[in-house]
Order: sequence, then structure tokens, then C-alpha cells
Amino acid sequence: MRWCRIRHNGKPTFALVHDNEVEVVDGTPFGEHVPQGTHVPISDVEWLPPVIPPTFYCVGLNYRPHIEMHAKMRGVEPVFPSQPDIGYRAVNALVGHQHPIQVPPDASEQIQYEGELVCVVGREAKGLTRDNALDCLLGFTIGNDFSERTWQSSDRTLWRAKNSDTFKPMGPWIETDFDLDAARTRVSVNGVECIDFQTNNMLFGVVDYLVAMSKYMTLVPGDVLWMGTDGHAENLVDGDVVDIEITGIGTLSNRVERL
Amino acid sequence: MRWCRIRHNGKPTFALVHDNEVEVVDGTPFGEHVPQGTHVPISDVEWLPPVIPPTFYCVGLNYRPHIEMHAKMRGVEPVFPSQPDIGYRAVNALVGHQHPIQVPPDASEQIQYEGELVCVVGREAKGLTRDNALDCLLGFTIGNDFSERTWQSSDRTLWRAKNSDTFKPMGPWIETDFDLDAARTRVSVNGVECIDFQTNNMLFGVVDYLVAMSKYMTLVPGDVLWMGTDGHAENLVDGDVVDIEITGIGTLSNRVERL
Repeated sequence: MRWCRIRHNGKPTFALVHDNEVEVVDGTPFGEHVPQGTHVPISDVEWLPPVIPPTFYCVGLNYRPHIEMHAKMRGVEPVFPSQPDIGYRAVNALVGHQHPIQVPPDASEQIQYEGELVCVVGREAKGLTRDNALDCLLGFTIGNDFSERTWQSSDRTLWRAKNSDTFKPMGPWIETDFDLDAARTRVSVNGVECIDFQTNNMLFGVVDYLVAMSKYMTLVPGDVLWMGTDGHAENLVDGDVVDIEITGIGTLSNRVERL
Repeated sequence: MRWCRIRHNGKPTFALVHDNEVEVVDGTPFGEHVPQGTHVPISDVEWLPPVIPPTFYCVGLNYRPHIEMHAKMRGVEPVFPSQPDIGYRAVNALVGHQHPIQVPPDASEQIQYEGELVCVVGREAKGLTRDNALDCLLGFTIGNDFSERTWQSSDRTLWRAKNSDTFKPMGPWIETDFDLDAARTRVSVNGVECIDFQTNNMLFGVVDYLVAMSKYMTLVPGDVLWMGTDGHAENLVDGDVVDIEITGIGTLSNRVERL
């Protein structure tokens, strides 16, 4: 099943994705919901982020090749995280599939994508075990952890480097039936593939994070957990279109628009 | 005017605070609202965080004496932030006035309060100027940026050090008429005052932060901005009661409960 959120008659609403259309739903995927019987052709949909999370969790460094590559570029030894320490992003930055990433005028040329798997929490959870951790999830979607690298280096926090408005595309939808072990993450810019990695080749996996986080923090329906990225991204320029595909979920596509 | 959020007949609701009672309100302080005519004695109120923010902003280092004191304790030169780089906290950790701060069993003895002024955004804002920045605020409340210091040192992020469930008491209410320049922040533990500082003695003030943040990020009704703390806190133990008073707002009181 594929859940999305769209703007319909001017209002945000949840909807179910079928082959060539979406079906508007009364209610939410986290509680009671009834299909309305209203269908919208896929081509006419205005996609919103598939959920606005109460808390927006995001993993920093989680793929060995990514860490090794960036250490080598800086001429230092790679340092791998020793435990799953979760980080945060901010909801003001979220936009949906096909929404432009609007880059502020004073951003440098070092603007880059990061293709990430996103877990969506479906039910309240605390004290999860390795056996039941995945049961709290509704499904999976895709995120682009878009970043301005000079701000990421210069500022004490990741506020504008990662959380400027529109810097966090998420979507296109939440897939509830997903084979994580079979999945690959592929990033293309203007239709040319530049990154391809095994989605589940993580230092700390989804279960590791859910167990660690829920030891201290109550997860609630709608919380999202972005799982980090692999590979090395090149700078993007005005007009570039970034497609992030995770096989088994779909493709999140967003154009870069320098303001 | 003082806005609070309480649990009433089992449900969260906004209310207005009068002398010895609160008055339940239909609606929210951010839009239409009508007093219901239902009054609850102050002594019977179950206080909730006065708002659940879409984004929970928090300033790290913002008081010169605090930074100098901690540098001296570590035997290093103080380093002052050069610009207002905002950070984040997480809503799972929020609790209201009089709710216990429940400390996980594996937390160390280094658990400490941080008394902070909290700004509450009342209307959507982007591109604020120094002249109009304060117009976007609904009012001010009080926060306790409760922290476990060993986790703060050991972990790559502040996840459990600052965002474990119940680690972010906020309240008791939002004061809409507040004289920031006249205010003092005073912290008492078990009735004994241990910290007293000028609330507005900040390196970067409320206007500085609102202008900087809103250059890149859209602020929305309910967003909160915690402004950092001054002074040096001692460790708390099971049963300690922490009162944080900001003159002109009120007193946020929470008991420490080791699990």
C-alpha cells in the first residue's frame, strides 16, 4: 500500500496511490481512514511531504564507504561512529515530490544532494526490542538531505546548511510493503546516474536505531527517521533535476532553483 | 494575558490564566478562540506544555559569564559564538509545569537544570527586520533545558543528553505582556536560590535570532525559541525540586525523579 499527502481543493489530505491515480482518503494512515471515492490522475497531483513529523530524526554518518571517501579527501583517517547517536532536522524545510529546492541567493556553489531511506513511525513506541522494533513502522519513503557545505563547515549547528526552507524534499509516498535487504538507492542528476549503493549497507541499521532511540525517547505516529547517505555528491547548479530512486519505493524528483 | 494548556476532562485544551483559576477556551491562541465559561481552580490544574511546537529551536551558548565560567573550569580560553547559529530540541521531551523529570536508570549523577527564557511564535514570519521581528511573537514562557552531562560529552549529538523523555519542562504559561529588559531569571533547588541573572544579558538577543533565522527559515505559529542559560548548575539528585522563575512571567517547577 502506498500512502501520500496531496493538496486537494486547496487543502492537504492523505490519499492512496494506485497505478495512474491517487484516491483521496478521509482520516490518516495512523488512525481511522475511509477512501472518499475521489480520484485524481497522477499527472495532476500536487505532492506534499507524505507526513509532517512531530519529531524529525536524521542519522548523520551511517555508510562506511561515504566516511572513508570523505576522510581520504581531507587527508585524515576515517572515524566511524561507535554507537547510533541520532540527530535532528526541522519541519520548516520539508517539501514534497516535484517541489523546487529554492536556494537562497547567498548560498555558495557547494550545494549537494544526499539520497536517504526514510522510516515512518506508525504507532507509539518506547523500549523496543530487536524482535519487535520494525512493528512500530508504518512504512518507508525517500528523503533528499540537501546541504550547503560552506555553512555546514562554518556554522556551529546545521541550521541553514541543512534546514533552510525547501532543503528537505521527502516523498513521493510511503510504501508499506518494502524489502529493505533487496533495495538499492540510485541518484541521478538530469537523468544521468551518479550514485548507486545498497540501501541497507548501513553501519547501524534501522533496528539498531529504533532500539537505541526508544530506550530514552517515545516515538509517536508520524515521526520520521532519515537513515543517512552513501557515495560522494558533486555540486548542483540552477535548474538541475535530482532524482532519488529507492527500488521498491519509487523516485523522489526535485529541481534546483537558485533564488 | 496568560495562555496555558491543560488536561481537562482527559483532553488537552488551551485556557486563560486568571488569579486563582484558569478558564477553558475553545480554539487556540494562534487563531479564533472563545472562552467556554468553564473555570478550574489553579490548584486542580494538570499543566501541559503551553504549546507543542512544529519546530523546537534552542540557542546553545548565549551568556558571556556562563561561557567564561565553563572555559575556566576546563582550563581553556573562552570561545564566544560569532553569529546566532540556532540549534534544535525535540518535542518528545516536553512536559508541563509540575510534571516530574524522569531520569533513566543509566543516567550518571551529572544531571543539571538550565533555566531559559522561551519565545513563542504567534504568526507566520519570514524575512523579519530588526524593526518588526518582535511582532511575530505571541509571548514568552520558561524552559528547563535539563541535561545529562556525560552523554552530552560522549555522544556525537545531544539526543539523549537533552532530549530523553521529560527532559524539557516548559511553562507554566505564555505571558503576552512581558518586559524583557526588566526581567531576571532565578533558579532555586528545594527552595534555595542558586542562580540569579539578568534575562536579557544575552550575546545575541531575541531580535538577533529572529532576524537571522527568518532569513532562511519560515517561522510558524507555535514554534518556540529557547534562549540559552547563564550561571553554573550543580548536580541534582532524586527528589530535588527545581523552580525557575522569570520575573514578569511566573515560575516553572519540576521535581527530579530517578527511575
